[in-house]
Amino acid sequence: MFDVARIRADFPILSREVNGQPLTYLDNGASAQKPQVVIDAITNAYSHEYANVHRGLHYLSNLATEKYEAVRETVRRFLNAGHEDEIVFTSGTTEGINLVSYGWAAERLGPGDEIVLSVLEHHANIVPWHFLRERQGVVLKWVDCAPDGSLDPQAVIDAIGPKTKLVAITQLSNVTGTRVDVKAICHAARARGVATLVDGSQGAVHGPVDVQDIGCDFYPITGHKLYGPSGSGAIYIRAERQAEMRPFLGGGDMIDVVSKEAVSYARPPLKFEAGTPGIVQTIGMGVALDYLMGIGMEAIAAHEARLAAYASERFAGLNWLNLQGTAPGKGAIFSFTMEGAHAHDLSTVLDKKGVAVRAGTHCAMPLMEHLGVTATCRASFAMYNTEEEVDRLVEALELCHEFFA
Amino acid sequence: MFDVARIRADFPILSREVNGQPLTYLDNGASAQKPQVVIDAITNAYSHEYANVHRGLHYLSNLATEKYEAVRETVRRFLNAGHEDEIVFTSGTTEGINLVSYGWAAERLGPGDEIVLSVLEHHANIVPWHFLRERQGVVLKWVDCAPDGSLDPQAVIDAIGPKTKLVAITQLSNVTGTRVDVKAICHAARARGVATLVDGSQGAVHGPVDVQDIGCDFYPITGHKLYGPSGSGAIYIRAERQAEMRPFLGGGDMIDVVSKEAVSYARPPLKFEAGTPGIVQTIGMGVALDYLMGIGMEAIAAHEARLAAYASERFAGLNWLNLQGTAPGKGAIFSFTMEGAHAHDLSTVLDKKGVAVRAGTHCAMPLMEHLGVTATCRASFAMYNTEEEVDRLVEALELCHEFFA
Repeated sequence: MFDVARIRADFPILSREVNGQPLTYLDNGASAQKPQVVIDAITNAYSHEYANVHRGLHYLSNLATEKYEAVRETVRRFLNAGHEDEIVFTSGTTEGINLVSYGWAAERLGPGDEIVLSVLEHHANIVPWHFLRERQGVVLKWVDCAPDGSLDPQAVIDAIGPKTKLVAITQLSNVTGTRVDVKAICHAARARGVATLVDGSQGAVHGPVDVQDIGCDFYPITGHKLYGPSGSGAIYIRAERQAEMRPFLGGGDMIDVVSKEAVSYARPPLKFEAGTPGIVQTIGMGVALDYLMGIGMEAIAAHEARLAAYASERFAGLNWLNLQGTAPGKGAIFSFTMEGAHAHDLSTVLDKKGVAVRAGTHCAMPLMEHLGVTATCRASFAMYNTEEEVDRLVEALELCHEFFA
Repeated sequence: MFDVARIRADFPILSREVNGQPLTYLDNGASAQKPQVVIDAITNAYSHEYANVHRGLHYLSNLATEKYEAVRETVRRFLNAGHEDEIVFTSGTTEGINLVSYGWAAERLGPGDEIVLSVLEHHANIVPWHFLRERQGVVLKWVDCAPDGSLDPQAVIDAIGPKTKLVAITQLSNVTGTRVDVKAICHAARARGVATLVDGSQGAVHGPVDVQDIGCDFYPITGHKLYGPSGSGAIYIRAERQAEMRPFLGGGDMIDVVSKEAVSYARPPLKFEAGTPGIVQTIGMGVALDYLMGIGMEAIAAHEARLAAYASERFAGLNWLNLQGTAPGKGAIFSFTMEGAHAHDLSTVLDKKGVAVRAGTHCAMPLMEHLGVTATCRASFAMYNTEEEVDRLVEALELCHEFFA
């Protein structure tokens, strides 16, 4: 049974106060808090079990290597990848997508070749492709969302043309909470021989993921949004795409032989992991994923669906609140504006009541432009949030309304 | 006064045993252990003060941002850079050098342009340049070291020709402990209009650094070798070189405006820092650098010089030990081989006595080839090591000699 009180008790920061009020942390879309097991794993690693990995033969190095490498299987299980060699460790989704851009796309896409994107994308899934446009004439082809924020998978599929080499699409919008039918898109793209990247930075946090079922080629995740340490992450890369890739970062560990004249590379996944990796944060990410799988991603999704339904109901009563994104089945991420108040002012007032939300463009400027807003306030929920916290948010918003109206 | 016992007491892992023996940790060249203040800073950040940085306006986000951004000034002070905007955060030296390779060199160097390297370089300062050779015909020009491991700065300067665009050189060899007169090299290169990268991954750990005095353009450091968290690092980039650079990783935080059609970039240093950074590990790195500056880098250098002198003296009595690198003024890093025993076997026997050393090519295959060895065993000392630990290493080596001779 999903016991939110028990889960909350695992997160030390959730019992603190902010501005004399209990913390209501609704900035999970930016980064999630960490359970005690993750913090303990980090402390333990540095206090008792730390050494560099891979190239040592002494006890501590072997111990650190075992714990670090075991996370590959944990991530594989979390994403249901076919093989743990398809898991490459990164510092987060941004590095993961840049790895695909530099390691796979840069060499394969030329002038006029197309990348299909949706207007829902986060800058992490936009700017690396703009680089290819700027540097080598690749064309970005955009698919808009409907007024409610939903994205028609057929519109994405229809955007695939003879010059399309990649479809890069989010699974869950970090602004509107829109869920995208990435499976339909990936299967159609695959049938046309087009590669697919699904940005799982938000999607993987809020429900079970099965990359084999989705049928994508690339699926990056972000450790710190998954209740793991900052600077942790991973990307699933289908084995046949790995074989098409050149290395991205150069350095130790990713090579086979280096001489003055030449260099040959290690086999994947090491080929894509240069230098000393984020050892302890990767170990911590593994603990976080185990913690999530222990609770159950289905149970987490069900809890968040209840929260989203309750929040939608409460927001519906606030006729002065402009919600951005009301797509059916959306995740528990709510962006909103209020006439007469800038998003930044809203978040400042909410903060006085201990309610942490984010205000700004949420690294999604094309979506802001499409929605016709310059910024929004965003409340993004996590598995440890409660209906009481929805009430606290609504109360604080009512205060904003009184204050700014 | 430098009190090694007091320093040791700050590192919890140093009081543990390995294989029933007190841990003698001599694998510091690969990664250093962490003092309690660093571990506590990490625990505190995750337990009480965690949020994403930069784009939030709530209390925790502001707090995390302040602590994170304050590290820029700490690094500036540690390296004596002219301005904190010249400090870019990275995940370590490998990412730092790749940033220079992709962001500065890739666009500026064409077929036949030369990069001057020494044979002492670590793969992190080799492979990114091999990429440019493979991908765009850049020529790598190598300068060998003398039989004792020393590197004649004039030989490096003489290698600079009309096609040379960059000199990339280590300050301190991770294999032989050789110190390089990087100041002489950088000033001569600068006089010829040639850019310079000094690999500070080892050098910054073992003595005071002044990048303005050295006169280099790029100086990357590695946080985890500096007693900070894994996955942390920074690079000094002279302001005028920043102005010449294009962005490397694309994503959030490094942009000014993103639209469907175009993208414009933030000013340095943010331009070179994409996505959510390694927040907590950067904060931890700041604490580690403050800890080091509190002890004093001069005092650390003096202690390590005493250790190096004592170790050299003890090793001189072992006529069956082949030391690789005996350059005057070398750092406390000792690579060695023993006839009849593979380096890996040596390290395994040493490990049984609790002595942690590294065996292999130390990510320096060109140097291994130059030295005529396939692998070495390496004992690399840190500020917390003692003469007693040198004795324990020597005792364990004598055991190896008995065992394998």
